[in-house]
Amino acid sequence: MDFKTKIIKVRYGETDQMGFVHHSNYLKYFEIARLEWLSELGISYADMERDGILMPVVSASLYFKEPLFYGDNFWVTVKLKKKPKATIEFDYLITNQKEKMICTGNTILAFLSPITKRPMRCPNFLVEKFN
Amino acid sequence: MDFKTKIIKVRYGETDQMGFVHHSNYLKYFEIARLEWLSELGISYADMERDGILMPVVSASLYFKEPLFYGDNFWVTVKLKKKPKATIEFDYLITNQKEKMICTGNTILAFLSPITKRPMRCPNFLVEKFN
Amino acid sequence: MDFKTKIIKVRYGETDQMGFVHHSNYLKYFEIARLEWLSELGISYADMERDGILMPVVSASLYFKEPLFYGDNFWVTVKLKKKPKATIEFDYLITNQKEKMICTGNTILAFLSPITKRPMRCPNFLVEKFN
Amino acid sequence: MDFKTKIIKVRYGETDQMGFVHHSNYLKYFEIARLEWLSELGISYADMERDGILMPVVSASLYFKEPLFYGDNFWVTVKLKKKPKATIEFDYLITNQKEKMICTGNTILAFLSPITKRPMRCPNFLVEKFN
Repeated sequence: MDFKTKIIKVRYGETDQMGFVHHSNYLKYFEIARLEWLSELGISYADMERDGILMPVVSASLYFKEPLFYGDNFWVTVKLKKKPKATIEFDYLITNQKEKMICTGNTILAFLSPITKRPMRCPNFLVEKFN
Repeated sequence: MDFKTKIIKVRYGETDQMGFVHHSNYLKYFEIARLEWLSELGISYADMERDGILMPVVSASLYFKEPLFYGDNFWVTVKLKKKPKATIEFDYLITNQKEKMICTGNTILAFLSPITKRPMRCPNFLVEKFN
Repeated sequence: MDFKTKIIKVRYGETDQMGFVHHSNYLKYFEIARLEWLSELGISYADMERDGILMPVVSASLYFKEPLFYGDNFWVTVKLKKKPKATIEFDYLITNQKEKMICTGNTILAFLSPITKRPMRCPNFLVEKFN
Repeated sequence: MDFKTKIIKVRYGETDQMGFVHHSNYLKYFEIARLEWLSELGISYADMERDGILMPVVSASLYFKEPLFYGDNFWVTVKLKKKPKATIEFDYLITNQKEKMICTGNTILAFLSPITKRPMRCPNFLVEKFN
């Protein structure tokens, strides 16, 4: 199962003095992708948080192949790695307007219970959406 | 009444591809200054928020004289403009390690009531600290 | 003369612990709007910079009416205030998906010469585009 | 060989609406740590870039144990993993004011030649500093 975001434009403020998009922004791009996917599946993460369910990132990895520049457009493809249980794991691929591979990565997110604020299993409504 | 922050180093990720600190960061520098000042006065803004009192920015202005570069250090001087009432107003001055004037600015902040979430007057404990 | 951006979604990482979009992001939204406008007019700011012409922000003001939240969409309307000369001045209006006025603002930008790195007049190709 | 930064305060603008420091900021904290270390070793990365040597991040990994909150202070300990060759590899550990382990991570950086803009070996002056 995977999902590709709409086209995203590099923002000027995302560049650094090397002229590259600063590497910390890629974690924000990954986040945009997984939340846009949830939204496409009919899940509002804003509502989930209002219901008290938090999804903090517990680990992340990033491999930078080529830099993104101001003026570039890109897409993020996000893939569910396996059926979510105690955590949910996504793989990411960022490609630019020339279909060049820019960055790959992975994040694992946990679920915090609205009541105990402790880790809980992936809620059923999420598991079902990803089936 | 005024307050000068400890020395602050420009962070690499704050630069943009012009090689200057991106102008949006100065609003963050102003924020660091006013919160550090509150902290010096014995007020924890973290605690204020836990008590439900929010202080959103309602207006801001910035005048950029000279850019900051990676490698620069700077200070923010923050000044209370007048006795806080429905809002609190601060003036800011950023100077670099050569005592060059970098940026001046101003922000006005409101107070939101923990109960009604509507604007309220500046809490007395804050008015007193600034007397 | 004015221009309205395509719809922009609030990004999760733009929120702060008040649950509002952090006020520093609005300067980035203004920047997106004026650069998207230049792009619509057939001007690549990336190319301008490669030719050595820089457009630093020399002043900015912002008036926050209502917060933006994660889950909101918004538009930025940007307006040229007067014929550009030594500087170029834009007014901004941000409205959300309910057509609520969120924020207004203004920025003045200068032009730095590729040769002297000193301020210069607005290049003719820009003046003409805005006629 | 390792290095511990001076104390760093969480900035308000680094929080997100969960009330945690947004996870993308940790890559900036790692960067602060390795550049502060270079600076302590007498190496100005600003000068290195002026000489045309760039050090882009080629991979990064992060493991989040506990969140950082506004009001927290923290330190980053950075460790050279092995003698730098074609790349330089650092391990990171972030601990808060209660000496709680907050985050661990790793980054690998490459060196780009000022002339060819292609990868080159770690410059000798850097290898020697880390001996």
